[in-house]
This record gives sequence, structure tokens and C-alpha cells, in this order.
Amino acid sequence: MMRMVDIIAKKRDGGKLSREEIEFFIKGYTEGSIPDYQASALLMAICLKGMDMEEATHLTMAMVASGDQIDLSAIEGIKVDKHSTGGVGDKTTLVLGPIVAACGVKVAKMSGRGLGHTGGTIDKLESIPGFNTQLTREEFIRAVKETGIAVAGQTGNLVPADKKLYALRDVTGTVRSLALISSSIMSKKLAAGSDVIVLDVKTGSGAFMKTVEEARELAEAMVSIGTRAGKKVAAVITDMDRPLGYAVGNALEVREAIDVLKGKGPEDVREVCLTLAAKMLELAGKGSFGHCRELAAQAIASGAALRKLEQMIRAQGGLADVVRDPALLPKAAHVKAYRAKRGGYITGIQSERLGIAAMMLGAGRATKESTIDPAAGIVLLKKPGDSVKEGDALMELHANDETLFESALAELDIAVAIGDNVPEPAPLVIDFVP
Amino acid sequence: MMRMVDIIAKKRDGGKLSREEIEFFIKGYTEGSIPDYQASALLMAICLKGMDMEEATHLTMAMVASGDQIDLSAIEGIKVDKHSTGGVGDKTTLVLGPIVAACGVKVAKMSGRGLGHTGGTIDKLESIPGFNTQLTREEFIRAVKETGIAVAGQTGNLVPADKKLYALRDVTGTVRSLALISSSIMSKKLAAGSDVIVLDVKTGSGAFMKTVEEARELAEAMVSIGTRAGKKVAAVITDMDRPLGYAVGNALEVREAIDVLKGKGPEDVREVCLTLAAKMLELAGKGSFGHCRELAAQAIASGAALRKLEQMIRAQGGLADVVRDPALLPKAAHVKAYRAKRGGYITGIQSERLGIAAMMLGAGRATKESTIDPAAGIVLLKKPGDSVKEGDALMELHANDETLFESALAELDIAVAIGDNVPEPAPLVIDFVP
Repeated sequence: MMRMVDIIAKKRDGGKLSREEIEFFIKGYTEGSIPDYQASALLMAICLKGMDMEEATHLTMAMVASGDQIDLSAIEGIKVDKHSTGGVGDKTTLVLGPIVAACGVKVAKMSGRGLGHTGGTIDKLESIPGFNTQLTREEFIRAVKETGIAVAGQTGNLVPADKKLYALRDVTGTVRSLALISSSIMSKKLAAGSDVIVLDVKTGSGAFMKTVEEARELAEAMVSIGTRAGKKVAAVITDMDRPLGYAVGNALEVREAIDVLKGKGPEDVREVCLTLAAKMLELAGKGSFGHCRELAAQAIASGAALRKLEQMIRAQGGLADVVRDPALLPKAAHVKAYRAKRGGYITGIQSERLGIAAMMLGAGRATKESTIDPAAGIVLLKKPGDSVKEGDALMELHANDETLFESALAELDIAVAIGDNVPEPAPLVIDFVP
Repeated sequence: MMRMVDIIAKKRDGGKLSREEIEFFIKGYTEGSIPDYQASALLMAICLKGMDMEEATHLTMAMVASGDQIDLSAIEGIKVDKHSTGGVGDKTTLVLGPIVAACGVKVAKMSGRGLGHTGGTIDKLESIPGFNTQLTREEFIRAVKETGIAVAGQTGNLVPADKKLYALRDVTGTVRSLALISSSIMSKKLAAGSDVIVLDVKTGSGAFMKTVEEARELAEAMVSIGTRAGKKVAAVITDMDRPLGYAVGNALEVREAIDVLKGKGPEDVREVCLTLAAKMLELAGKGSFGHCRELAAQAIASGAALRKLEQMIRAQGGLADVVRDPALLPKAAHVKAYRAKRGGYITGIQSERLGIAAMMLGAGRATKESTIDPAAGIVLLKKPGDSVKEGDALMELHANDETLFESALAELDIAVAIGDNVPEPAPLVIDFVP
């Protein structure tokens, strides 16, 4: 008979767990027959002794099997999904989803709410008046079939093992583990049923993976797991040392995404979105990466991607007119400038601090129970590398409650660094895996 | 504010925990404000990242502080205690306690019941008709004052942190850790209040520490902790590759101990007991080790140690006549021989298996709830190195229930190895620390 204590001891001693042992653990823990204190001991042993890719894949598959799996077979053709390891002001899904769908590849994206400082894709879309992210399984599939794209909140009981394990890891110092992080992300992607998964792995001060090496390791692990599970998977490592684009905050980011789809908007957002979209199209069989990048750029230039966004908003009950007239998006009652404390060059804006400041204004959740103010957030007027004079407005703070400005401004004092020398610009797209 | 999750992460990353952090953990865990699942994650991190001697000492002292501590100051002079890491047929306390007391050094020994296959010192003493090990704190101190020695079960709430932690370690694969093992043992010794502590660290196939290196590491850790805590501490590393003496079982071991105190009895028991007793006397200030060994040997030769045992039994309500006439001890209704399966030399008797066989006869507890049969056990007739002929009686099995013989005999078939060559005898006393 298998005993959890023997499995723990095996991993403690650096042994390799079998598929049966991993399945015993995940099944028992999800069902409640294995207690938290045994699970946390094993998690710590995994943190410190690691898991090889075979173990990590078994772990991922066992987690997928712990709950429902979405069957997208009713949708013809290749379905693509995308995941970002999270960044401040990351509105890429709003841009690249319509691009990919406009190029004829189905985007069936289940997305989460924001867990960190800023809203998730679902929160961003909900800033569009009327937009419904709570689709039933049938509505979701119908929307993808008819429009070629749908973005909705998770339905059903997807990967309950991950929910339970993540809550435990959070309080037991066992979050930082390549095997645990990659299996957590990949189990949700695999359960969501797409054929192609493109991963945007962020690196830099504002990201979970602080160095390129860490980001590459995580990317390689996730690609390996996904490939072993029979999916087409690739990762793009992108820079999060600086915020992506100018807008941080839900409606503000939707507006910026619309700008990019109109061929305007910040170059960095456009660049990352075209790269990720091209990777998704390439894996979906639309030709070489270079050709796919062309297709993506044309989808913007022709207006096809913008029209696809409009269709998606309409199909999900939202006010599609926001695409033509972004002024229809929620607007904050108060706008206040954040001004430069000295002259020089902006040498850095810490994304994490910027996210906290935006959260303080109402753009994110301080606790799980907090509600988001869709209009709140921050718009950068200057970015790292720009020269500024003392007193120049560097950002616009948007809030419906004026009393929120003070603490956000104080946070920004920490976030923004101004120096005498122009900083070396970091490349935006750092690497591809594989 | 201190947070347990930060303490876990610090140890996970190989950091050194401060006294405050360790106290926060032990206090919170004992009180119940820190849950099992956080404790087990930290325990696993300690298993894999270790603790230095400063941390282990803080851990020990925090555990001591979690409960009552025995105040022996009412007893004049130096009080000595002894701990054995446990072995099959280990009756040393019954022999060396009276020797040391006969030499004028106070022995205040709190002892536990047997947790493993065979009885502990308390169980052994309780095989003497009338012997009372359940002394109140006052009775215990009065007995030590008047007789110079008392051996009693633990009273009060000694080291509750260890009880709780040990139960958790047992089911989370976190027993094997030098810091955790040594702090568990030393916290109980320190709480018991003696000035001198001599540790008998067993090594070999029948012991918890299988190699001399492991045993030395544990001995060094415990001596270091005890010394840092202001006690006089030394350890003797002794062999447990073979059973100590001939008797395994409670009354059978009392009888063997009496034999040794009469100047008869097995040479190995005498040797280990004289060594440990000499170490205790030396640390208590009775002179050099060599001189103290002489004192100990004289205490046997003069009959003073035997008289001390008699006094102790009488003081604790037992039938002191057993010292003159061991036939008054409980005797089993049935005795059966275990015979050699072939001729040759006994090359080994696995102590652990021997202990299990004795337990099967009733000498130990299979579960915490089992009761012990004081008369049951095994008496070896031959020891490793002896030559035997096929069919020779190698052991006498003692039981009150004849049906118990079969499984015990089968266990002994595994325990005993007979070969063609005389085995190299291992030294009995392997090393001293320091």
C-alpha cells in the first residue's frame, strides 16, 4: 500500500517520484485524505530537491485530471491560447487575440481575474459597458465558433488541485519552485483544451522571474511539459523592467489596446503583441514566423483586427461603439499629475511600485474581496530614457476618490528614478523557447 | 511583525534563524497559533538545509521553555543523568545507576516507557513486584535525597513542544535531521534538571544511527547543545551491532542487571556500564576517568552497588528481596528453545529483529495501547562468534502464551546468521565525545 510519508521521504532523499506516487498525492490531497501538513512537507522537499521534466509532467497531468477539462472539439480547426506570467499594464491579450482571430485562427481564451496589484484580462474587458465574461460552456463555444474569438472567465471546476495547492504554497514558503510553478500554469492551460499555447514569460524587476536565466528556465520547463502533453507550445521571453505601454488601469488599458489596433498606440505594446501573435499563428500552421508577423501586421493595417475586437465585444454583450469612440469607456472624476522631483533622465520606473500605486487608486484589488474601479489608473506621459525638467508632469493619475491620490503619489516617489545619464535601453523581446 | 511564512522561506534559502524566530515558531506551534502545515514545511527545510549549533541550541532551549522544568536544587550536590539512544536489551541504567549512587553521586533519572520493540527502563523496573515508578515531584526529590538515586516516569508537562513536533515529524518524513534529533533528546534532558548528562549513543545495525560517523555527528551535536546550555555533557559511542548481554525482556533484564552487580553476568554489559558510570563520575568531579572506572569497579566488588539497588527498590515500594533471590521476579509459564538450523559460527544476530521477536512474545508494545508481559522475552545462549552445531539451542524463548512462539521463531530465523568463518569482533566502546 502506498503511504504519503514514504513519498515524502523519497523526495527528501532526492529520489524520483513515479507517476503512481504523484497521482496518489494529487488525488489524495484534492479529496482530503492527505492532510495539509503532509502536502506542505512534500512541497518543501520538491522546492529543495526539484523534479525532473518527467515528474513535472506527471504532476501537471495529475492536476489536470483532478477536475473538469474543457472539450473544444466542437470548434473546428486549431484553437490557440496564450498565457502571460503577469506584468503591470499587460494588455497584450486585448490586442493579439483580435489579431490572431482576424487571421483566421480560433482564440478560445479562458482567463482569470487579477490576483496581483492590477486587474487581469477579465477585469479589463469588464470595464467595457455591458461586456459579459460569465459565459456558460455552451455560450463560450458558440462565441468562438461564430466570432473566432471569445475571452471568458473560467467555468466549471478546473484544476481544483491547483487551487488547493496554491493556497497552501502561499503560506508555507513553497511558491518558488520551477516544477511547482510550471505545473501550476500548464495544468490550467491544458485543462482549458486549446491545441496551441504561447507563453509570454516576463522577466525583470517588475516580473516574478527577476533574471533572464530564471525566465528561460521557467519557459523551457513549461514548453517541455506542454510538448510532452501533446500540445504545440512555445514561449517568448519579454522584458518587464519597464511598464508595457503607457496605461495602467482597466479602462485606460482597453483604450490603449484599441489605439494599437488602430495602428497608433505605443510601439512597445505593438511589438510584443505582433511577436506573440506571430508565434501563435506559426504554431497554428500559418507559415513561417516571418510570414506570420507580416499577417499580423496586415491585420492591424487593414483594420481587420479592430473589427474583430468590435465583433467580440458585441458577441459578449458589450458596447461595441467603444472601439470607434473610446470616450464611451468609464472615466475617472479626478485626474492629477505626478511631477518630476528633479531634472535629468528617467532611468527607471519600477513596474511593481507603479502597479501598487495604480491599485491604490482603485485599479486593482488589495484583498480578494476588494472591488475594482474600472476608470482608475495611471497614464505615463514619460518613459525611461526620456529627459525631463523639474516639475514636468510625468504621469496622470485617474481616480474617482480624490483622497486616494496622496498615498499613490508617495508610492510613485519610490517607483520613479531620475538620473543624469540616459539609461541603456533593454531589448523588449529577449528570447524564444524553443 | 514576525510571520511564519518568512521564517520558512529563510530556512528554505539556507539562512540562519535567529533566536527570536525559533522562539516564535516553537511558542506559536505549541500554543496552536502556527498550524501543522507551516510547521512541517519548516521541518522539511531544516532536514534539507540543516541548522548550525547555535540554531540547534536556541531550538532546544525554546523547546525546554515550552513546558515545565524540574528544579532539583533541593537536592544537595551534583545530580547526574544518563540517556541512551536506545538499543535492544539495554539494561545499563539498572546497573550504572546504583554504581554511580554507591560512589556518592546523586542519580535523578526521569525515564520513559519503551516506544520501540522492547520495554524502556520504567517497564523493566515495573517487572519488580510492587515497584512504583509513578512518583510525585516531591516523592522523587525525597527519594534522591535519602537514597541517592531514584528512577521514575516523567511527571508534569515536560517539553510539550517535543511531543507535538515528534508526532508531526513521524508522519511527514522529517525525523532524520541532526538538529531535530539532538534538540528533541537534549530538550528533555535539560528540562529534567540534572547538572551532568552522559549520553550513550548506540551505533550499528540495531541502532538508529547505523554508522559510527552518524553516531559521532549526533554525539557531537548533543554535547555541543548541552554544553552551550551550561551543563557538563559527554557522550560514549557504543556498539549495537549485537545485543548487549544475553537477556531481552523486562524481568529477564532485571535479573541480568542484578547478576552484573553481583560481579557475575555478561562481560559486555559490565564493560559498557563501567565506562558510562566512570564518565558520569568523572563529570561529577570524582577524579580522572581511570580513577573513576576504578571506583565503579570497586562499587561492584564491594557489593555497595548491589546494596544501592536494593535500597532504591525498597524506597520505591518494590520487593527488595529480588536482589538476593531473582527467582522472585515474574517467570513465564512456557520456555521454548530456538535451535540452530545448521552448524558453523554465529556471524550475526540482528538486534532489531531480536527485539521484534521479543515483542511478539509480549516483552514490548506493538502499539501504544499494548500491555507488556514482564516475564516474556528471550535469553541468548550463544552470541556472535560462538561455534554451534546443527540443532544446538541458541536461545530460550519465554512466554505466557504458547501460541506466540511460532511467529517469534520465524522472526529469529531472519535475525540469526550462521556462517563458516569466525566474525571479526567489533569493539564495544567505540569512541568518546569530547
